[in-house]
Amino acid sequence: MNEMLIQMGKNAREAEKSLRSLSTAKKNEALAAVAQRLVEKADVLLKANEEDVANGRKNNMKESLVDRLMLTKERIEGMAEGLRQLVDLEDPIGEVLGMKKRPNGLLIGQKRVPLGVIGIIYEARPNVTADAFGLCFKTSNAVILKGGSDAIYSNQAIVDCIRETLKEHGVTEDAVQLIGDTSRETAAEFMKLDEYVDVLIPRGGAGLIHAVVSQSTIPVIETGTGNCHIYVDETADLSMAADIVINAKTQRIGVCNACESLLVHNAVKDQFLPVLAQRLKEKNVEMRADEEALALMPGAVPATEKDWGTEYLDYILSIKVVYSVDEAIEHINRYNTGHSEAIITNSYENAQKFLDEVDAAAVYVNASTRFTDGFEFGYGAEIGISTQKLHARGPMGLLALTTTKYIIYGNGQVRP
Amino acid sequence: MNEMLIQMGKNAREAEKSLRSLSTAKKNEALAAVAQRLVEKADVLLKANEEDVANGRKNNMKESLVDRLMLTKERIEGMAEGLRQLVDLEDPIGEVLGMKKRPNGLLIGQKRVPLGVIGIIYEARPNVTADAFGLCFKTSNAVILKGGSDAIYSNQAIVDCIRETLKEHGVTEDAVQLIGDTSRETAAEFMKLDEYVDVLIPRGGAGLIHAVVSQSTIPVIETGTGNCHIYVDETADLSMAADIVINAKTQRIGVCNACESLLVHNAVKDQFLPVLAQRLKEKNVEMRADEEALALMPGAVPATEKDWGTEYLDYILSIKVVYSVDEAIEHINRYNTGHSEAIITNSYENAQKFLDEVDAAAVYVNASTRFTDGFEFGYGAEIGISTQKLHARGPMGLLALTTTKYIIYGNGQVRP
Repeated sequence: MNEMLIQMGKNAREAEKSLRSLSTAKKNEALAAVAQRLVEKADVLLKANEEDVANGRKNNMKESLVDRLMLTKERIEGMAEGLRQLVDLEDPIGEVLGMKKRPNGLLIGQKRVPLGVIGIIYEARPNVTADAFGLCFKTSNAVILKGGSDAIYSNQAIVDCIRETLKEHGVTEDAVQLIGDTSRETAAEFMKLDEYVDVLIPRGGAGLIHAVVSQSTIPVIETGTGNCHIYVDETADLSMAADIVINAKTQRIGVCNACESLLVHNAVKDQFLPVLAQRLKEKNVEMRADEEALALMPGAVPATEKDWGTEYLDYILSIKVVYSVDEAIEHINRYNTGHSEAIITNSYENAQKFLDEVDAAAVYVNASTRFTDGFEFGYGAEIGISTQKLHARGPMGLLALTTTKYIIYGNGQVRP
Repeated sequence: MNEMLIQMGKNAREAEKSLRSLSTAKKNEALAAVAQRLVEKADVLLKANEEDVANGRKNNMKESLVDRLMLTKERIEGMAEGLRQLVDLEDPIGEVLGMKKRPNGLLIGQKRVPLGVIGIIYEARPNVTADAFGLCFKTSNAVILKGGSDAIYSNQAIVDCIRETLKEHGVTEDAVQLIGDTSRETAAEFMKLDEYVDVLIPRGGAGLIHAVVSQSTIPVIETGTGNCHIYVDETADLSMAADIVINAKTQRIGVCNACESLLVHNAVKDQFLPVLAQRLKEKNVEMRADEEALALMPGAVPATEKDWGTEYLDYILSIKVVYSVDEAIEHINRYNTGHSEAIITNSYENAQKFLDEVDAAAVYVNASTRFTDGFEFGYGAEIGISTQKLHARGPMGLLALTTTKYIIYGNGQVRP
C-alpha cells in the first residue's frame, strides 16, 4: 500500500480526534476566514485555474467539461458564499435526539456525531474542493480529497488557501488534505483505505462512479449521474412546458440535474413539438427523436435505444412520444438514474400519480429539474446528490455527513 | 444465475408494487392475524423446531447455538408480541417531512417511502423470520429470506404460517419469500441479485457478516457482531459492577450484546476481582485474564492477544487491568466491533468522557450492555443491530427500512 496514502490516513485520523472537540464558534470563525481568504486570493485561484483550462483545451476537453472546470470571480464568490451560509447553519454535532426515559429508568437518546474521515473522489469541478471542505469541517469530519488531474492546479490553490487559514486560526490543517498524485493507480489504492476512511463519496461522471462502487472497500455513497426526464402530459400548459424544457436543458448543460430526455403525450405532440423544435434549434440543441417525434421536429435525427439511457451533459436532447402517464412512468423507471424527474401537467390525478410512482431522489410537478441542488433546497453547499436509497437521498447537506450513537444513562439496571 | 432466485426476485419486485399501495389498516390487520396464527400453530412450529434442534445436536452444535435455535411456547409468544407491537407503531410510510415553501414558491418536502426489496441472510435464529417479515411488511417492503440450514424446518413452518395468513387476507404472499435451498452456492448467488434486491442485511456471526460484506454487490447494512466491553472505573459501586458484569455475561450468552471482555481499574482490582471470580465460577464462566488479573482470580487462565478481539458467545470472559479511563477507552476503541460498551463509575467526568470518546452504536453508564435491543429501546421488533455508521446505527426498527424522496410542487418555476 502506498505509504503516502497511509500517512494521509493517519493524519486524518489524528485530525478527526481534535476536530471532534472543536467548538462550533471556532469552526464558524475558521469557515468565515476561509471564505474571506478565497475572495481575497481570487487572482491566485484564477491564475491556477487558467493553467488547468489551458491544459484542458490543449487536450481537446469538451466545452461542457471546460465549463465545469472554469473558475470566474463570480464562481469564487459563490464558493465563499457557500462557506458563509454554512456559518449560519446550525451545527448538528452533539445534538441529542429523542432522549427518553424507559420504564426501567434507563435514559436513552441518540447523539449526533461525525462520520469520522470522509474521502471524496471527484472530477473537474474545483468548487467541489471548497464545498466538500466546508461541509466536512462544519460537521467535525476530516476530509481527504482526490480531485482529477484536469483541475489539479485549481484544487491545490484552493486547498493551500484553506490550510493556511486553518493554521492561522489554530486549527489542525489536516482537516483537509488533497492527494497530489492524480494517477489512476493512486485512486484505486485510495479506494482500499478502509482502515482510515469511513465513507467514500464519488462526484463525477458515470464511469468514475461505477469504478468507485465496484472497487471500493470503503462504504460508498453514490452520487450524481442524472439521466433526468421531463414528461409533458396531455393537460400541460404548453408554454410553461417549453420554458421548463429549455431551462432544464440549456441553463447549464454540464450538470447532473440538466434534462436529457423529453417525453411528450401523443395528444399534444402536434401542437408542442414544432414550437419546441424551433426554440431548441435557437439554442443549438441536437434533437434525437423517436419516429413519431421526428416528423414534427425539423432538423431532428433518429434516436437509438442507446439514447434513452444516455446522460449527454451536452447540447443534445432525446425525445419520445408516449400515450399515457403510465407509459411515461414506466419508461422513466426503466431508464432513469434515480436523480430528478418532472411532469408538466394540469391534471391533479396525474401529478399525484407521477409523484407517487416515479422512483427518483427528486420528483417535480411543473418545475425545472435544475432545482435539485443544496442551495436551491436551502441547505447551503452540498457534498453531492445521492442517487442511492441508503443513508441519504437527494442533495446531501450537513446531516448526511453525520451519524448517531445511542447514549444511555443508567443507575445499575440489569436485564431481567 | 440461478433461475429460482431470479424468479423470486421478480416476484418480490411485483409484490413491492402492490405493497406500496396497501393501506396501513390492511397491513395492521394482516400483522395481527399472523401473530394470532403463530400462537395457534405453536405445536406445528415446535415440532418443526424439534427436528432442527435434533439435527443440531446430532451435528454437535455448540450449546450456545442450540439456545439461539430453540423455540419454546414463550419464544413463539415473543415473536407474536413483536408483531402485535408493530400494529401499534405508527406507519412511517407516506409521511412528508419538513415540507417548506422556498422563496421562489417551490413547495419542497421529503416523503418517506419503502426501500423496496430487502434481503436478509441469517443463521440459526428462527425468530428472525417473523421479526424480519413484520418490520418489512409494516414498512411496505417485500422481503426475501435466506436462513441457515440449521433452522430450515422452523423457518419454513413460520413462513408457511405467514403466507397462508396473507393469502386469506387478500395480500400478496410474495411479501415474504424463503429461499429453500440453504447451500453456500445459492447464498453467494443471492448476494449478487442487485437487480432485484435493494439492500441486504446479514444477521449472524462474524464469518457470515464478513462473507456478505466482501461478496455482495447489493448495498449491505452490517449488523450484529458484538465484542462488548464493561469497564469498571476506580469510583464504581463494586456491588453494582458485579451485578452488571454477571448479567451482561450470563443472562443470555449467545447474543451479540452479551459482555465478552472486562476492564478493571487498577485501584479497585484487589477488592473487586476475587469477589467477581467467585460469582463467575458459580455460573461456570471461564476466565481468561491478563497477568495482573490472573493473580486475583482463582481458576482463571492466561489471556492471549487473540482473546481481546474475540466474541465468544459462550461462558468465557476476558479480563484486563487498566490504569485510567483513557487506557480503557483506547483499548475498547482498538478491539471493539462498534456494538455496545459500558462504564461503571461514579465519576461525572469519566462518565461523560466515556460517552463522548467510545466509538460504538450504544454507550452505557452504569447499566448492562444487554439492553441494546429493539424491544428494550422501545421500537418493537428489530431487523438487527447496525454496527456501521451509514444509514442506521444501533437497533434498527421501522425507520431503518425506509428511505425518502423529495417531492416538489411548482407552478412553472425555471432556474434563473
